[in-house]
Amino acid sequence: MNHFSYDQLFNFSRNIFLAMGCPEDDATTAATTLLSADMRGVDSHGVARLSGYVRLWEKKRINAQPNVRVVHESPSTAVVDGDAGLGLVVAPFAMQVAIEKAQNAGTGWVAVKNSNHYGIAGYHAMQALKHDMIGMSMTNASPLVSPTFSKERMLGTNPIAVAIPANEEPPFVGDFATTPAANGKLEVLQRKGENAPYGWIQDKDGQNTDNAHGVREGGAWLPLGGDRLHGGHKGFILGSMVDIFSAVLSGANYGPWAPPFVSFLEPSKDPVGEGLGHFFGAMRVDAFRPADEFKDHMDNWIKRFRESERADENQPVVIPGDPERAYEKERGSNGIPLLQPVEDDLKALGEKFGVSF
Amino acid sequence: MNHFSYDQLFNFSRNIFLAMGCPEDDATTAATTLLSADMRGVDSHGVARLSGYVRLWEKKRINAQPNVRVVHESPSTAVVDGDAGLGLVVAPFAMQVAIEKAQNAGTGWVAVKNSNHYGIAGYHAMQALKHDMIGMSMTNASPLVSPTFSKERMLGTNPIAVAIPANEEPPFVGDFATTPAANGKLEVLQRKGENAPYGWIQDKDGQNTDNAHGVREGGAWLPLGGDRLHGGHKGFILGSMVDIFSAVLSGANYGPWAPPFVSFLEPSKDPVGEGLGHFFGAMRVDAFRPADEFKDHMDNWIKRFRESERADENQPVVIPGDPERAYEKERGSNGIPLLQPVEDDLKALGEKFGVSF
Repeated sequence: MNHFSYDQLFNFSRNIFLAMGCPEDDATTAATTLLSADMRGVDSHGVARLSGYVRLWEKKRINAQPNVRVVHESPSTAVVDGDAGLGLVVAPFAMQVAIEKAQNAGTGWVAVKNSNHYGIAGYHAMQALKHDMIGMSMTNASPLVSPTFSKERMLGTNPIAVAIPANEEPPFVGDFATTPAANGKLEVLQRKGENAPYGWIQDKDGQNTDNAHGVREGGAWLPLGGDRLHGGHKGFILGSMVDIFSAVLSGANYGPWAPPFVSFLEPSKDPVGEGLGHFFGAMRVDAFRPADEFKDHMDNWIKRFRESERADENQPVVIPGDPERAYEKERGSNGIPLLQPVEDDLKALGEKFGVSF
Repeated sequence: MNHFSYDQLFNFSRNIFLAMGCPEDDATTAATTLLSADMRGVDSHGVARLSGYVRLWEKKRINAQPNVRVVHESPSTAVVDGDAGLGLVVAPFAMQVAIEKAQNAGTGWVAVKNSNHYGIAGYHAMQALKHDMIGMSMTNASPLVSPTFSKERMLGTNPIAVAIPANEEPPFVGDFATTPAANGKLEVLQRKGENAPYGWIQDKDGQNTDNAHGVREGGAWLPLGGDRLHGGHKGFILGSMVDIFSAVLSGANYGPWAPPFVSFLEPSKDPVGEGLGHFFGAMRVDAFRPADEFKDHMDNWIKRFRESERADENQPVVIPGDPERAYEKERGSNGIPLLQPVEDDLKALGEKFGVSF
């Protein structure tokens, strides 16, 4: 695997967004959001997805010059219409609205319609940290998950992110899909010819399976928890909450109507809303107690949990955000590794748009 | 099992709270909150717990005449000091503050310190429904759950509830502990001499076990998801979020410092805050879009999910809140069944306080 510097991949992505017709600021925002995934080790959501966004734009499902705007509001809430813009641009706008609402009202909560894939959930939640706010971010997504007792794909992997500031310790940053594992892990198992753990997916008849090809063959992901016996109905509640907050509150498409990211699948002919939906929150810490007091206790919380007794002496307890920070540090020094097919894909994209890679 | 009418158990519980010295209104509120658990089929959180509250009061860990009050606020937030009152009384007060904040600011978010066990999470979230608001409720609890890779009990079963209004359909009401199953299910398995499913708990060394006595023998519950392979680190994030929102935001005890419900275990000598913590939210639906529009789409959401293809023709897909509504209906007609030891316990409690059962 070849390694590439942040600057090279950032500039390339930005130039592609400019070639699509994005205004300068939007291209910068989109490239920043996209690259945050590569830096944090979430390779599936970074530059590897750039050509996917381009294909959606080619299909006229992404508007490169959207009029992103607030269409409904109260002192602590807003609904943003993304005007089919890049989720990578719409989401930072909406998170900024949440932060401004919080500055005035203590908290801010923004539901978004008419958007599409917004990159990694955690990046948006983390924007709150520098304001001494807790940030939250969630989004619905193309259907891939079955409700408990169903064999139909009804929900996306609907991630939830929460970012909580500390003082001397780094922030607590949780960012997780509401499924047992990430979809990319199945592809790794397929390549190795290995089976999937029971409890991840079900086959097309809704039966537990360890066939790593199960989802591709018409099955579905189980919600976080797995089957009913292991609490999968709780993961179904979580995924549903993300879907309802992101899409029913905002007026986007929910459940099985959520439009697919891949350009070769058509969105529903009978939509129940506009585009994909997101939901963001910002809570000013000092709307609850003095910020320094809170952050000192967060330091204590993090230290105490980090020092909790290990089951295996060689495996420390992981505070949410630790692994992604380790990636950022390592990739900041050594660059971002790309799989050969991703590198080839980006080169082809560059040639198509006359942008040097 | 004998069955008892709602009125009999309500009046008995109310009289016990009065005998503890609670004011009339508080006794009514506490009995209403407590009985909502019995009616909704959550037997572990209803009258079966009444003598537990009494024992905490006898130990002076519950204040029957608290000065429950807002101690910090912003337009959309508040912190409530429960003054060591019954959680059954403190929580409804705090949820009402959240609802009033939402009426003015669009949303209301209330963190509570210096409280204790608040009954079922769902009851509090549901108070928002009649105002066309989405309700949320969470609480931390006595440590029983280990973080991923740890063998120490650091978090409670930290439930999350979310209640979302619909129009013709009943509301969506999710209410779940952030563990694979409820603690009471282990007791059932113990009585039957059966093993626990792998993925629920770990033994005292932090190893996966199917020993249904594992937690009693020094082990711990795994977070929702189970072990690391099955996404337990995501359940750990959720349980941590509940702990931080409920206790670090409010100034209550968090993590391993959370005071135990049982009176025979002493709270920490070195507390990091006051009592247990809760967190409540209320979001006015029309702070996002017209309420009728939202509720019509919720009807559509619920119908579509209820009709999603079944894996087993005989097992319909369950919408969160359906099972509890079925209990309410059945118990409204036939009364509330109590296990003999619970009936005996209540009778003894009545004799002690001169309250007829």
